[in-house]
Amino acid sequence: MEAKTPEASKTVLTDVVLPGETNALNNLFGGELLARMDRAASIAAGRHSRQITVTASVNHVAFSKVVPLGSVVTVEAKVSRAFKTSMEVCIDVWIEDRVSGEKTKVNNAIYTFVAVDESGKPVEVPELIPETDLEKERYSAALRRKQLSLLLAGKITPNEATELKALFD
Amino acid sequence: MEAKTPEASKTVLTDVVLPGETNALNNLFGGELLARMDRAASIAAGRHSRQITVTASVNHVAFSKVVPLGSVVTVEAKVSRAFKTSMEVCIDVWIEDRVSGEKTKVNNAIYTFVAVDESGKPVEVPELIPETDLEKERYSAALRRKQLSLLLAGKITPNEATELKALFD
Amino acid sequence: MEAKTPEASKTVLTDVVLPGETNALNNLFGGELLARMDRAASIAAGRHSRQITVTASVNHVAFSKVVPLGSVVTVEAKVSRAFKTSMEVCIDVWIEDRVSGEKTKVNNAIYTFVAVDESGKPVEVPELIPETDLEKERYSAALRRKQLSLLLAGKITPNEATELKALFD
Amino acid sequence: MEAKTPEASKTVLTDVVLPGETNALNNLFGGELLARMDRAASIAAGRHSRQITVTASVNHVAFSKVVPLGSVVTVEAKVSRAFKTSMEVCIDVWIEDRVSGEKTKVNNAIYTFVAVDESGKPVEVPELIPETDLEKERYSAALRRKQLSLLLAGKITPNEATELKALFD
Amino acid sequence: MEAKTPEASKTVLTDVVLPGETNALNNLFGGELLARMDRAASIAAGRHSRQITVTASVNHVAFSKVVPLGSVVTVEAKVSRAFKTSMEVCIDVWIEDRVSGEKTKVNNAIYTFVAVDESGKPVEVPELIPETDLEKERYSAALRRKQLSLLLAGKITPNEATELKALFD
Amino acid sequence: MEAKTPEASKTVLTDVVLPGETNALNNLFGGELLARMDRAASIAAGRHSRQITVTASVNHVAFSKVVPLGSVVTVEAKVSRAFKTSMEVCIDVWIEDRVSGEKTKVNNAIYTFVAVDESGKPVEVPELIPETDLEKERYSAALRRKQLSLLLAGKITPNEATELKALFD
Repeated sequence: MEAKTPEASKTVLTDVVLPGETNALNNLFGGELLARMDRAASIAAGRHSRQITVTASVNHVAFSKVVPLGSVVTVEAKVSRAFKTSMEVCIDVWIEDRVSGEKTKVNNAIYTFVAVDESGKPVEVPELIPETDLEKERYSAALRRKQLSLLLAGKITPNEATELKALFD
Repeated sequence: MEAKTPEASKTVLTDVVLPGETNALNNLFGGELLARMDRAASIAAGRHSRQITVTASVNHVAFSKVVPLGSVVTVEAKVSRAFKTSMEVCIDVWIEDRVSGEKTKVNNAIYTFVAVDESGKPVEVPELIPETDLEKERYSAALRRKQLSLLLAGKITPNEATELKALFD
Repeated sequence: MEAKTPEASKTVLTDVVLPGETNALNNLFGGELLARMDRAASIAAGRHSRQITVTASVNHVAFSKVVPLGSVVTVEAKVSRAFKTSMEVCIDVWIEDRVSGEKTKVNNAIYTFVAVDESGKPVEVPELIPETDLEKERYSAALRRKQLSLLLAGKITPNEATELKALFD
Repeated sequence: MEAKTPEASKTVLTDVVLPGETNALNNLFGGELLARMDRAASIAAGRHSRQITVTASVNHVAFSKVVPLGSVVTVEAKVSRAFKTSMEVCIDVWIEDRVSGEKTKVNNAIYTFVAVDESGKPVEVPELIPETDLEKERYSAALRRKQLSLLLAGKITPNEATELKALFD
Repeated sequence: MEAKTPEASKTVLTDVVLPGETNALNNLFGGELLARMDRAASIAAGRHSRQITVTASVNHVAFSKVVPLGSVVTVEAKVSRAFKTSMEVCIDVWIEDRVSGEKTKVNNAIYTFVAVDESGKPVEVPELIPETDLEKERYSAALRRKQLSLLLAGKITPNEATELKALFD
Repeated sequence: MEAKTPEASKTVLTDVVLPGETNALNNLFGGELLARMDRAASIAAGRHSRQITVTASVNHVAFSKVVPLGSVVTVEAKVSRAFKTSMEVCIDVWIEDRVSGEKTKVNNAIYTFVAVDESGKPVEVPELIPETDLEKERYSAALRRKQLSLLLAGKITPNEATELKALFD
C-alpha cells in the first residue's frame, strides 16, 4: 500500500445553520455539529483507506465559540496519522462573516476511525506522510494521544507511554 | 463594488448518503439532493454578493444517474453570471467510488438567487469575471437562459430575446 | 394502455410550515419546498403511469413569494403531458390567509419523471388527454420545453426544434 | 359567525413513505403517522375556525393495517362537530396500490382542537352543519365521545352523560 | 410465562425541546410529542412481552399544558394491563422548571400494543400484576376502556360491556 | 449553594433506533449517538447547576460496540465533578437484548459543560459530592482529565499538572 498525504484525504463540508439545527439559544446545537464532524471525518478516513470505516472514538472536541443561526459553517477533515488499522482524523471548523467574509475558528476535534472489511474485521491502512508544519505537529501529537488513550484504558503502563512520560521529565 | 471571479464564490459540500435521506429504492431521494444543492448554491451567492440572498428560481436540474445509499456526494456551486441584483449559480454533483476513488458526475443544476437588504428590497451585486473556458461558456449561456426565462414569463418579446433568436437564424 | 386525463393524476399535499422547515429568515426553506414538490409530483407521475417513476429533471421552479413560518401550504401536482416513457408534471403552490382563507399563488414548477421497471429500464406510459384550457396550454408548452431541453443538451439542432423556432419567426 | 359544512374544512395530505419515516420492520413508524394526522387535523380546525388552534386531545386512533415503505398515503381530515370553543376532527387514512390504484383504509382517528386568541384564551368557533350520512353519524357520535371524555375526567356524573346512558338502557 | 409488574416495563425518555421540534407558537409540536410517546410506549410493551410489538391504537391523549421551547421533557411509560396478546400502556409526561427543578404534569396518554411473531401473528404475553394504588386503578380502568373500544367498534353489545354498564346503574 | 450528589443530576434517555437514524451498514449512526449523548448530558448539567449550560468540550467517547437498527438504547448521564463554573458529565450507554432483556455496555463518554447567565458569562455551580465507588473514582479521574486538557492547551506547565505527573513518578 502506497503512503498518502493528509491533503489526499481532505474533505470539506460547507453548509448553513437552519432553525431545525439550532438549540434553544438560537445557536447551532452541539450534537448537530458533532454529527457533521462525524460525517466529514468518516469520508476523510474512507478516502485515506479506501475501505469501510467505523468511528472508534472521539478523543477531543473543543467548542470555543458559539455558531449563530444562519452562519455559514465550514468543516474540514484530514487524516493526521495512520496506525496499523486505525486513523486519527483532525477536524477544523470555521464560520465566516457574511459581510466581510472573514473566517473565525470555532471548533476543532479529533476523531479515530478503524478500517474494516465486510465482516467487520480490522484491515490495514496506508501510511500517512505529513507535509506541512501543522501536519507534522499533529502527526507527532497523535502518538502521544494514542499512548494516553491506551494508558487511561489500562492497556499500557505509564512506563510504556514513552512519549507522554517524556513530557514530565 | 469590485468584480469577482467564480472561484471566489466556490462552495463545496461533501457529505454521505444515510438511510434517512434515501427513497424507497435505496437511492438518494431527489428532494434531498435538491435541498443540498439549494444550501450550497445559496452560500455561493452569499459569498459573491456579501448580502442576504433568496432563491428566485431553479432553472434546470438534470438527474443523470442515481446516487446509491452510502455514496460520498460532492456538491460544488459557483456563481456563473451576475446581473444587476441577481446571480446565476451553476452546481455540479459527483459521487466517488469507495475503492478506486474515481469520480462520476451524477447531476448538474442551475439556480438563480436575488440579493436583498434587511427589508427584502433587491440590492446590486458585484460583476462576475469568468476565467476558465467552462466558466466563460456558462457565462454566455446564462444570458440566453435569462432571456428565455423572461420570454416564457411574457416579460420580453421574441425579438427582444436577441441571444435566443440568434440560435435560430 | 388507455389515455388518462390530468385530473386522474391530481395529487394534493397540504401541510403547515413548522420551525424545523424554515430558513434563517423564518420563511419556508427553499430546499424543503423543492422536496415537497418532488414528493407530490412523483405521486402524480405514479398515478398516471402505475409504474415506478424516477425524477429525470427539474425544468423550472419560480419562487415568486416567500412562505412565512406557520403558513398552510398546498402543493398540487398534475401530469401535464406524457411522452413515450416520460411525463412532465406541473406543480402549483398556494398559501392561504388564516383569517380570510384567501389563497395566494407562491410558486409553480415543472418536473419531469421517467417510468421504469424493476431493473430501471424505461417503460411506456399512457397518453395524456388535456381537458381544461389551462391543461391544454400546458400540454402545448410541454413540447416546446422538451425541444428546448433537447436543444440545450445538444441532442437536436435548432432546425429540429420546430415548436421553438416558430416562436421567432 | 356563519355555520360551516365539514367539506369546507376538508384537508388532504398525500405523501409517500420514505426510509427515514419507517420503523425497524420497514413500515411507516406509528409516531410519524400520528404527526402527519396532527398536521392535517390542525389545518382542518384552522379552516373551520379561522383562528389559532391547539391540539387538546387525541381521542381515538386505530391502526388497522401496516403501511409499507414506499406507500402513497392519503390523510384526509374534516371537522366532525363544533362545540363552543372546541372542534372534533375526524381523520381517515388510505394507501393505494401502485399497480391497480385501489385504495385501502389503514387508519382512522379522532383529534380535538381548541381555538384560541393570541393570548391563548379560548374563543368561539362557528357551528358545524353535517351534510352526508357519514358526516351526520360522526356528528352524533361526537357528543357521546365528548360526554365520555368528561365522564372519564370526572367532570360530569354518569347521569349527566345522557347520550352515553341511553346506550345502556 | 411469568407475570410481571408495571415497574418491570418502566421506560423513561428524558429529552429537551429543540427549535426543530416546535410548532409556529414556539411550543413542542403535538405530533412530535405523540411520536416520543409512541417510542417510549413501544419499548415498555417490548420489555413486558419480550416480543416484537406493534401499535394497535391510541386510546386517549390529553394535552393539558403547552411545552415551551427549551423545556426538559420526561416521558414515562409503563404497561398498565396485559390481555391475551395485547397490552395497554399508560404514559405520563412532565416538564421541570430549570431554576426550581419543580415538575409539572403536561400530558397523559394511553396506547395499546399487540405482541406479534416474525410473521405478524399475535402471540401471548405475560400477565400484569399491579402493585401501587395508581397501578391498580389503571389496571381496573383498562378493562372499561377495552370494553368501550369493542363497543364503539360494534364488536360487543352494550349488555356485554359489563364494566361500563355498571357505571350507569 | 448546597453541594449535590451525582444521583441528583441523573438523566435517562431510553429510545429505539429507527432507520432514519442509522448509517449505511444499518447500525446507529455515530453522529446520532453523539447528539443523543449531548442532549442527555446537557440536561444532567442543567439539573446540577439550575443554570443555562453550554457544551464546552467532548473529552472522550469510546464506541466499543455497534448498535444495530431496532435496538433499545439507554443513555444515562450524571455529573461526575463540578469545578468553579464547569461540570464534567459521565455518560454510559447500553443496549438490551429484546428476548433476554440482558444489557450490554456499548459506549461511554465524557462531556464538559459550562454554566452561563443570560448574557453568556460563566456563573458558579454547586459542588459535587460523589457517593458510590464508581462515582468517587470518576471524581478523581476528572481532575487528571482537567489538568491534561489544560496541559494540552498550553495553559499550565507539566509541573503544574500535579495529578498527571504523579502517574509517571
